[in-house]
Amino acid sequence: MEKLPAAVNDDFLYAQIAARIEKQIKQNLLKTGDKLPSVRALSLEQGISISTSYKAYVELENMGMIEARPKSGYYVKFSPARSTNAPEVRPPLKKIEQASVTQMIAMVYQNMSEESVVRLSRSSPPFSLIPMAKLNKSMMESIRKSPTGNINYENLQGNIGLRNQVAKNAFNWGGNITGNDVVTTQGCLEALIFCLRALTKPGDTVAIESPTFFGIFNIMLSLDLKVLEIPVNPDTGIDIDYLAEAMDKVDIKACLFVTNFSNPVGSCMPDDSKQQLVKLITKRRIPLIEDDIYGEIYFGKSRPRTCKSYDTEGWVLLCSSVSKSIAPGYRVGWCIPGRFKDQVINIKMMHTISSATPTQAAIGHFFETGRYDLHMRNLRKALYTQSLRYTQAIVIYFPANTKISSPQGGYALWVELDKNIDAFELYQLAIAQNISIAPGQIFSTDARFTNFIRISFGLTFNDVVERSFKVLGELIRQLG
Amino acid sequence: MEKLPAAVNDDFLYAQIAARIEKQIKQNLLKTGDKLPSVRALSLEQGISISTSYKAYVELENMGMIEARPKSGYYVKFSPARSTNAPEVRPPLKKIEQASVTQMIAMVYQNMSEESVVRLSRSSPPFSLIPMAKLNKSMMESIRKSPTGNINYENLQGNIGLRNQVAKNAFNWGGNITGNDVVTTQGCLEALIFCLRALTKPGDTVAIESPTFFGIFNIMLSLDLKVLEIPVNPDTGIDIDYLAEAMDKVDIKACLFVTNFSNPVGSCMPDDSKQQLVKLITKRRIPLIEDDIYGEIYFGKSRPRTCKSYDTEGWVLLCSSVSKSIAPGYRVGWCIPGRFKDQVINIKMMHTISSATPTQAAIGHFFETGRYDLHMRNLRKALYTQSLRYTQAIVIYFPANTKISSPQGGYALWVELDKNIDAFELYQLAIAQNISIAPGQIFSTDARFTNFIRISFGLTFNDVVERSFKVLGELIRQLG
Repeated sequence: MEKLPAAVNDDFLYAQIAARIEKQIKQNLLKTGDKLPSVRALSLEQGISISTSYKAYVELENMGMIEARPKSGYYVKFSPARSTNAPEVRPPLKKIEQASVTQMIAMVYQNMSEESVVRLSRSSPPFSLIPMAKLNKSMMESIRKSPTGNINYENLQGNIGLRNQVAKNAFNWGGNITGNDVVTTQGCLEALIFCLRALTKPGDTVAIESPTFFGIFNIMLSLDLKVLEIPVNPDTGIDIDYLAEAMDKVDIKACLFVTNFSNPVGSCMPDDSKQQLVKLITKRRIPLIEDDIYGEIYFGKSRPRTCKSYDTEGWVLLCSSVSKSIAPGYRVGWCIPGRFKDQVINIKMMHTISSATPTQAAIGHFFETGRYDLHMRNLRKALYTQSLRYTQAIVIYFPANTKISSPQGGYALWVELDKNIDAFELYQLAIAQNISIAPGQIFSTDARFTNFIRISFGLTFNDVVERSFKVLGELIRQLG
Repeated sequence: MEKLPAAVNDDFLYAQIAARIEKQIKQNLLKTGDKLPSVRALSLEQGISISTSYKAYVELENMGMIEARPKSGYYVKFSPARSTNAPEVRPPLKKIEQASVTQMIAMVYQNMSEESVVRLSRSSPPFSLIPMAKLNKSMMESIRKSPTGNINYENLQGNIGLRNQVAKNAFNWGGNITGNDVVTTQGCLEALIFCLRALTKPGDTVAIESPTFFGIFNIMLSLDLKVLEIPVNPDTGIDIDYLAEAMDKVDIKACLFVTNFSNPVGSCMPDDSKQQLVKLITKRRIPLIEDDIYGEIYFGKSRPRTCKSYDTEGWVLLCSSVSKSIAPGYRVGWCIPGRFKDQVINIKMMHTISSATPTQAAIGHFFETGRYDLHMRNLRKALYTQSLRYTQAIVIYFPANTKISSPQGGYALWVELDKNIDAFELYQLAIAQNISIAPGQIFSTDARFTNFIRISFGLTFNDVVERSFKVLGELIRQLG
């Protein structure tokens, strides 16, 4: 358990070349409109094949960094992303010493349960918005309703009341399913694990986002899976062209993406991108595990759709839970595994016989009574307000060259600091002051995000939080 | 997921020879006092090496089948076991077609959730003895006591109230631990899985009992582990000499044994055997996962000790749960992982962040208020009475040559039928009559127990149960 899952990106010689050129563009050594060496010249210059040179340019083109002009060659393209304050999409750079990344993840997890710490690293509902009284009522009422007081083993596939409610709510994301399509789990993490175990064997490669939630690395490590990191664009999510090309090169057994309000970037894939992604994975027969845990936390007018809603052939396995919406401690999650339902149920049987009865029944009841809808309206409004107040605090207290994401849902801001700042150093200084943040290093297997931090806005904004931002701002200036 | 874990017993040529001789003894072809061929003669006769012949005799000697007389040779030994009605200890025979065993396990599991079936295959507390009202009270009271209504993430290692109670109860089995030694899990199955994952990698070999609970095969299969089956004696449990010898031959990474009221045999290891086992595994530095799920269901005067109670160096990982005592549907279990605590916690973190808060808190509260002790006194008395009534029904309705175990705890009778009876055929005829039993085939990777069935006495004995035994008896006579 000492090392991170192996990244296979290194197999891509062309990706390294592309990364080098991209860096020059970002450092303004190559400026918008500059002509790049011809494919042949690049090949000679770098000692690589013509086809590798060509692929490097295609990749940069797909990333929107350069453009091909007919009969003329490749040029550095104008990019609004580079001129706005949105954090940049970063390609793979050099590897971080691996053991230390796992240690960092363990440290950040550890901080999350320390009461004395201001936990800007924790993405869960603020205490003030927990529907305690109403959920307790649902717990009592569902126990009273059950002839066996919810003490007996639950049905293997899951509590039918809860499954029916999940199916009913699926209507909001464009889903057309029944309770029979749903398998309940102990939180979303277990749903992801059951799906991965149904689809892969140790040593297999899974495509994930870059940056990605660090819990995903832990899962991959624990299941002995390799990861292939696919860049995420803050506006459009997963780079589908990059993914398609990666599928040509690498034997990818499954994809695992957060399509709505990805963690940490906060991107939400537009409908047409989702459709395109489903088309791609269906054509290649490579299943997509869609982690939709943030889908219900939208700040806009309506709930974003899911890839699952476009999935006619059952290649999408949607996973979610109530940990971000109602009650993290209940450990109630589910998946909708499409054509892999039997395999997922089989793995659930082997692992646990059935999920806990009283918690599933209580959440099912909470949904059924309409308590959920009312609660979610309040939670969304409150979190949106908090996202704005947190952003404002960063603007006020952090250096002027700080870039901040503008998520339209979820729990996190992705913050890019000056490129000289080492986020893990900042993390260490901050935790010494009882402030916990998530350093960029734990969101990738390589050193792409050393000057990024994730700030979660789950905590209710108050004087303590504001003071923490002031302290963080001072620490950043010290380091800069 | 189509096949059972590979058994490595086949590596033992000498075991095959021993099995053949044992069979002849059991079939009375070789009688008590008969002289066996010399080691050299056996070697010539069977075309095996002298050392293999010798090992075969040592094994038979360890099994108590034969004895060495100084300067004279080996003789068939008198065995009270062969002259009583106790089911026999059986060595490996030929392999069952593998896929069908997994199918059988899935079928039996399936039956367990069918309300219309008389479930003589299900080892859980009878409905009438479930402490419904009092447990509900504990659920409500523990929620009321919690400032956050038990809605937040629980501590990673587990609810401290529950852990302290587990530590306190450990006193009854000779344990001297604190809540800090305990890690909570989602039932005992998850505890076993976390321990196995902490100790092994795919492809490793784990020593288990033969016969063993079929859920263990599912775990081994799902973790891609090999099993080495160690014979169990109904009186003394695991054959320690066999195990020690196996450890010489095979690279065993861990042992997984039910030391108290093993499932299905019902054996309870005497204290000195437990001590001897702990000595062995400590000396060899091979960890023992001790599944103590039935330890609290004792019919005698006092709670049997555990191997853990003799474990001074931390090589025993004790696993248990409340699924057999209070509430299967709560999915509350734990392990006491000794020197492997950090590894187990790490795997728990990767898999699930934390276990469900309200269920753990409720069980902790149920223990704390003394409700548990009162409940267990009643449950033990009732189960003991049921074990006798079930035994009586078998004596009345089954053919006279049926042999029945006499467990001093647990939930199951291990029943040996006439050797011509195929237990899986009986299972199929029985389920057609809405009676579910567990056929011997699902308790081993090979065909050792084709004429055995496990009868669980969890259901309250009543007319329906009695009628089921009558039907089973008739079916057995049809098959015989």
